[in-house]
Amino acid sequence: MQPIIDASPPKWHLGHTTWFFEKLFLEEFKQDYKVFHPDYSYVFNSYYETVGKRVLRTNRGNLSRPSVDEVYAYRKYVDEQIVEFLHSNLDLSPDQKKILEIGIQHEQQHQELFLYDIKYILGTNPLFPEYQKKIKPGPSNKARPAKFLAVERGIYDIGYHGEEFCYDNELGRHQVYLHDFEISDQLVTNEAYMEFIEAGGYQKFQYWYSDAWDWVNRENKQAPFHWHNIDGQWHIYTLNGLEKIDPFEPVSHVSQFEAAAYANWKGLRLPTEFEWEVACNLHEPTIPADSNFVEKNLFKPFSPENDLQFYGQLWEWTNSAYLPYPYFKTETGALGEYNGKFMVNQMVLRGGSYATPRDHIRPTYRNFFYPHLNWHFTGIRLARHI
Amino acid sequence: MQPIIDASPPKWHLGHTTWFFEKLFLEEFKQDYKVFHPDYSYVFNSYYETVGKRVLRTNRGNLSRPSVDEVYAYRKYVDEQIVEFLHSNLDLSPDQKKILEIGIQHEQQHQELFLYDIKYILGTNPLFPEYQKKIKPGPSNKARPAKFLAVERGIYDIGYHGEEFCYDNELGRHQVYLHDFEISDQLVTNEAYMEFIEAGGYQKFQYWYSDAWDWVNRENKQAPFHWHNIDGQWHIYTLNGLEKIDPFEPVSHVSQFEAAAYANWKGLRLPTEFEWEVACNLHEPTIPADSNFVEKNLFKPFSPENDLQFYGQLWEWTNSAYLPYPYFKTETGALGEYNGKFMVNQMVLRGGSYATPRDHIRPTYRNFFYPHLNWHFTGIRLARHI
Amino acid sequence: MQPIIDASPPKWHLGHTTWFFEKLFLEEFKQDYKVFHPDYSYVFNSYYETVGKRVLRTNRGNLSRPSVDEVYAYRKYVDEQIVEFLHSNLDLSPDQKKILEIGIQHEQQHQELFLYDIKYILGTNPLFPEYQKKIKPGPSNKARPAKFLAVERGIYDIGYHGEEFCYDNELGRHQVYLHDFEISDQLVTNEAYMEFIEAGGYQKFQYWYSDAWDWVNRENKQAPFHWHNIDGQWHIYTLNGLEKIDPFEPVSHVSQFEAAAYANWKGLRLPTEFEWEVACNLHEPTIPADSNFVEKNLFKPFSPENDLQFYGQLWEWTNSAYLPYPYFKTETGALGEYNGKFMVNQMVLRGGSYATPRDHIRPTYRNFFYPHLNWHFTGIRLARHI
Amino acid sequence: MQPIIDASPPKWHLGHTTWFFEKLFLEEFKQDYKVFHPDYSYVFNSYYETVGKRVLRTNRGNLSRPSVDEVYAYRKYVDEQIVEFLHSNLDLSPDQKKILEIGIQHEQQHQELFLYDIKYILGTNPLFPEYQKKIKPGPSNKARPAKFLAVERGIYDIGYHGEEFCYDNELGRHQVYLHDFEISDQLVTNEAYMEFIEAGGYQKFQYWYSDAWDWVNRENKQAPFHWHNIDGQWHIYTLNGLEKIDPFEPVSHVSQFEAAAYANWKGLRLPTEFEWEVACNLHEPTIPADSNFVEKNLFKPFSPENDLQFYGQLWEWTNSAYLPYPYFKTETGALGEYNGKFMVNQMVLRGGSYATPRDHIRPTYRNFFYPHLNWHFTGIRLARHI
Repeated sequence: MQPIIDASPPKWHLGHTTWFFEKLFLEEFKQDYKVFHPDYSYVFNSYYETVGKRVLRTNRGNLSRPSVDEVYAYRKYVDEQIVEFLHSNLDLSPDQKKILEIGIQHEQQHQELFLYDIKYILGTNPLFPEYQKKIKPGPSNKARPAKFLAVERGIYDIGYHGEEFCYDNELGRHQVYLHDFEISDQLVTNEAYMEFIEAGGYQKFQYWYSDAWDWVNRENKQAPFHWHNIDGQWHIYTLNGLEKIDPFEPVSHVSQFEAAAYANWKGLRLPTEFEWEVACNLHEPTIPADSNFVEKNLFKPFSPENDLQFYGQLWEWTNSAYLPYPYFKTETGALGEYNGKFMVNQMVLRGGSYATPRDHIRPTYRNFFYPHLNWHFTGIRLARHI
Repeated sequence: MQPIIDASPPKWHLGHTTWFFEKLFLEEFKQDYKVFHPDYSYVFNSYYETVGKRVLRTNRGNLSRPSVDEVYAYRKYVDEQIVEFLHSNLDLSPDQKKILEIGIQHEQQHQELFLYDIKYILGTNPLFPEYQKKIKPGPSNKARPAKFLAVERGIYDIGYHGEEFCYDNELGRHQVYLHDFEISDQLVTNEAYMEFIEAGGYQKFQYWYSDAWDWVNRENKQAPFHWHNIDGQWHIYTLNGLEKIDPFEPVSHVSQFEAAAYANWKGLRLPTEFEWEVACNLHEPTIPADSNFVEKNLFKPFSPENDLQFYGQLWEWTNSAYLPYPYFKTETGALGEYNGKFMVNQMVLRGGSYATPRDHIRPTYRNFFYPHLNWHFTGIRLARHI
Repeated sequence: MQPIIDASPPKWHLGHTTWFFEKLFLEEFKQDYKVFHPDYSYVFNSYYETVGKRVLRTNRGNLSRPSVDEVYAYRKYVDEQIVEFLHSNLDLSPDQKKILEIGIQHEQQHQELFLYDIKYILGTNPLFPEYQKKIKPGPSNKARPAKFLAVERGIYDIGYHGEEFCYDNELGRHQVYLHDFEISDQLVTNEAYMEFIEAGGYQKFQYWYSDAWDWVNRENKQAPFHWHNIDGQWHIYTLNGLEKIDPFEPVSHVSQFEAAAYANWKGLRLPTEFEWEVACNLHEPTIPADSNFVEKNLFKPFSPENDLQFYGQLWEWTNSAYLPYPYFKTETGALGEYNGKFMVNQMVLRGGSYATPRDHIRPTYRNFFYPHLNWHFTGIRLARHI
Repeated sequence: MQPIIDASPPKWHLGHTTWFFEKLFLEEFKQDYKVFHPDYSYVFNSYYETVGKRVLRTNRGNLSRPSVDEVYAYRKYVDEQIVEFLHSNLDLSPDQKKILEIGIQHEQQHQELFLYDIKYILGTNPLFPEYQKKIKPGPSNKARPAKFLAVERGIYDIGYHGEEFCYDNELGRHQVYLHDFEISDQLVTNEAYMEFIEAGGYQKFQYWYSDAWDWVNRENKQAPFHWHNIDGQWHIYTLNGLEKIDPFEPVSHVSQFEAAAYANWKGLRLPTEFEWEVACNLHEPTIPADSNFVEKNLFKPFSPENDLQFYGQLWEWTNSAYLPYPYFKTETGALGEYNGKFMVNQMVLRGGSYATPRDHIRPTYRNFFYPHLNWHFTGIRLARHI
């Protein structure tokens, strides 16, 4: 099922990441490749081109077929074809290597989206089913008080440089001038965010952007997504089921609208994506060794003093719109649709979440979503001018 | 999945018909009955009352849980509890008998809705999957030409009388005065309907009600639902997959808007529900011995001369709005919501379809849907004044 | 302005009724007639045909031009042309007489709609401006208690017969069989309706049709249209401004949904349009001598005992869907669009209102609106079976 | 009337700019000031606060009252009160001066919006009425070919400095690092834009942002707003009526979506707002001496070589999202709602249009609209990296 337009049915993620390898690698490079099913290209692509002769208004929410078993058969077939190709083509061309690499990165991105969508689907089900049962630790300990880390004005380098994989939207290494600022070493906690709720934050227009205030009223927002007030006590739906809010965990499932309103209420602001990247480079935070999708366990302070605490645990909203870097170039062909076409109306998030594959957590990685969305794993880090 | 608001996910039908027995029979009559799951009443009821303490905006389209297996376990549990009750209570009270009977009738209605919804779901899937594979007969033979059967003016009895089960909306046996009229012994065929399409019927406002014309344009209607024009050839999605239109079969999947526009174009009209019932009583049509859900096979003329051909094969739109009979009384309690609350804005269909349980096909049965709907198994029978 | 899709801007009524004479009479019958403005036919028609070469998505709400002065000039021009034609054609053909007559009737209908729309526009304006200042009488006196008038079962004649003008939807004089029933001699009063509100009528689903309950919740209905609760006291916006509710006046501005829910709550029902017409014929109510658009003054009991009190003061919702009479024939040409194309999804109202031209108040007149609408001048009369 | 949610009725602009002076100046500073009408504050404010005791769902599109005459009386009253205040208070406090100044600036902004809205209202009227009759010059001469002006990399100052009035969103003079780039000295012409149309620009997804492509399809876009293709010839609605497109005029009434797609098709891009401001400072373009609302006459090249031609004739879309400058501070009180609350989801335009008051045309002025809007007076200037 596809409960909101921004999410996809879990099965679709499986088929779509498989289709990526079939369409962009096997059809391109494997001689006499026979597609698994002639209609899957239509069903699992995420691109604009309408395919073939038949026009049918369909959507991802309507995929009762192919069945999950059929999608797994599709994956198996494509996997085998790829392996076979690799065995008989030991010297891959640069193009082939590039497509394979981006295919893997693409699938890793969908592994995370997969969890967002599952959490949405189960968390809006009246039974609040558990996705996984975990031995849960007790509530978190109160972290040490937040500290603001200073960054001095100057010209800084922005964007990826190195030999590893990165996306096209991180390229175009360039310079940005920053003014003096400070950034919190902590994410905002549930406890701190509940103060905002209790202070009537969702009822006072002055903290919100105009669009945000419309959203609050239209959607009757009272709290972050997945929060439920049961008999006066705030609960949160996690992949382990419905639980009491842990006050010392970072607040999650906030939209950029909520993050900005909270910052506004505190007399502070969100960092820009450039400030964030520079602060991250300066403080070289420790990244969690392994993000194994256990919601609870990773929400612990783990980094040394003067680090960005909780780095890589929740995607951190910035106040930067998602725009091209100065030397951004759209790739030709299908890859060209990967990032560039989304560069309007969305806001940048930085860092990574407990569901992000470890290799995707890097200072230059640019994630982006519409500012009203909050079904993904988001948090708030504050900044201020000096 | 729930692809349109008017349809329900197949799984929901299973749970809902089960819940009916649990809520209205077991909870009422079985001592110390333990409900299968405290939240199922909320999940599977179709009534207005919001249940319990928790308020959650949910909908039938969001039921990833309970799983199909859990719903079957629920059915099994409730079945066993009913059987156990029947074994230990040999003398059922009239109330108990009534609830049991209506529970069975209710489930039979949902067996048919189940097929509408499955056909909708599969028929809007880009793969057009088959629901069942059947040995298909060749195309139908051309039926004998349609003949109009005459009914004379007079006072006629309308509504159920007898000892068998009927719904509350058939009760209130009363008199209606009819003027002379004639009714066709045939349903309109695909061939005849294609003439309407080719004559530009969907492009000419004068045949359509004002609301219907808005619908045609808003939805960009060109043909009945489940029809697809592939390379200039009309096809129809059936539960056996996508097939070429058989010209001699009755046209199906038309809305009342389309039925009325077609009749208008022919210079004729749809019968009222009273005309239909009286004609049906007079001509005592043979009802198909067994409606076994095979779409194709039953579309054959089978009745003797002067009968209403195809009776019980497609629900026949009338030009009567669904309104209470003169002595209609709403039942008290939950049963009171069964029929009465729908008595505005809907149109009556009579007869039955190839998916209708045999016992539901009777001259007095009143089916009803909004006039723009066409995902159910509908057809057109024409009438005229003399 | 056009505040809701069902209403039209006042200026449009002026232009449209003028256009009717130009298009259907002058262009048809007057030699060398020169249209006033080539685009007015497009601007002021209410028909489906898109006119001319230019396609522009427009709507009645967008008519800043022609200005009011230009529309009056248009009226003056067409009036003069008609008068000129009449002076030089003393013997009108039957067709000419018919179009002239229907043109006048049509304009009279719009005179009433004009007031509905003005009342809507002013009554939703935050300043609640007066349309006219009137010396207001004191509050009404309590009427004598409602009495139910009985009608015996039998075959009755329905539909217009006579020599005067009537609409096509009243024709097809035919017979209807009625069962014994009783109808109230009073309209439901504000006082009686307030009991329904106070009893939680708008909060209890069981009194409402399913569609009606959706409407109540979607629109957050708490009271009839034009009612405003100010500091705990119900007020109503009238064309004389905002006033305290007069408890003894008939309740007005109710939708059919509200009328039916009220009847349901009382254990009664609305009459059918046939019952209403027969009762009206039997009791020959006195019609108000002059309907002069003064809202307040006419709300007085004025008829002799055993009459239908308040007849012709508020349109009375029936429980009949607006459907064709047995011998209904659509006129050919543009007149054919007058009534027939609306014969689905609407409900019949009978009687007339204080804004209805005197000549339109007759027992056979069939008015019709969607059941959720309530910006027109509607009321409730109850009926019951015996 | 209010034809789209983004526009306001002309009358509202008159009342709103008056209300600004009444609410923020007279009520604040004039002793014993008597408001003109107690409800006007509610009717004409553009702020969130719901006013007073009465709750009424209203909107700007519903303002049949106060009438235009009443609004002018309101303006006259407030003007007189202000003049009286100024006569008797010769030494204004800084606060008083500030409010007066911003009130005037605010009104000047609305003078321009006023024309956008009038053009929208008349240009979507089927009669295409003229707003003003002007002696029109012949078609423009072909301008000299576009030339790209280079700007070198470096740290540049951004934001207002000086002693004149500016808005809060221009403050926070700060530094931005720019990379080498070039900017066109011309606006894109109608001729050039028609090539994009003819090349199928509106039919090819690859030039458009994802959101933009949805917009093109949802709205069925084929050309800029106010363009009409009549018998194969492009026309544009201007305030002088419907005219043939002049190929050498700058293309206008494009959304940012269209501007960006056009740039994309050309292999170029839009400038950022910082690039634009720096280029403007370097080239000191001549500003038109007088913007007198004559659409036609000002569309002439007028500036010396190496200038930004057409500067101040059409608002120029940038590729910058509207975001706060580093030291941006929201004002306290009602003025705080002026700019800050719109700093999400909108794009910056720079320059000014032929309808912009002369004093508002300055290099640092930041205008902003949603990227899909195109009823205002917009154009395209291209840029590129070197």
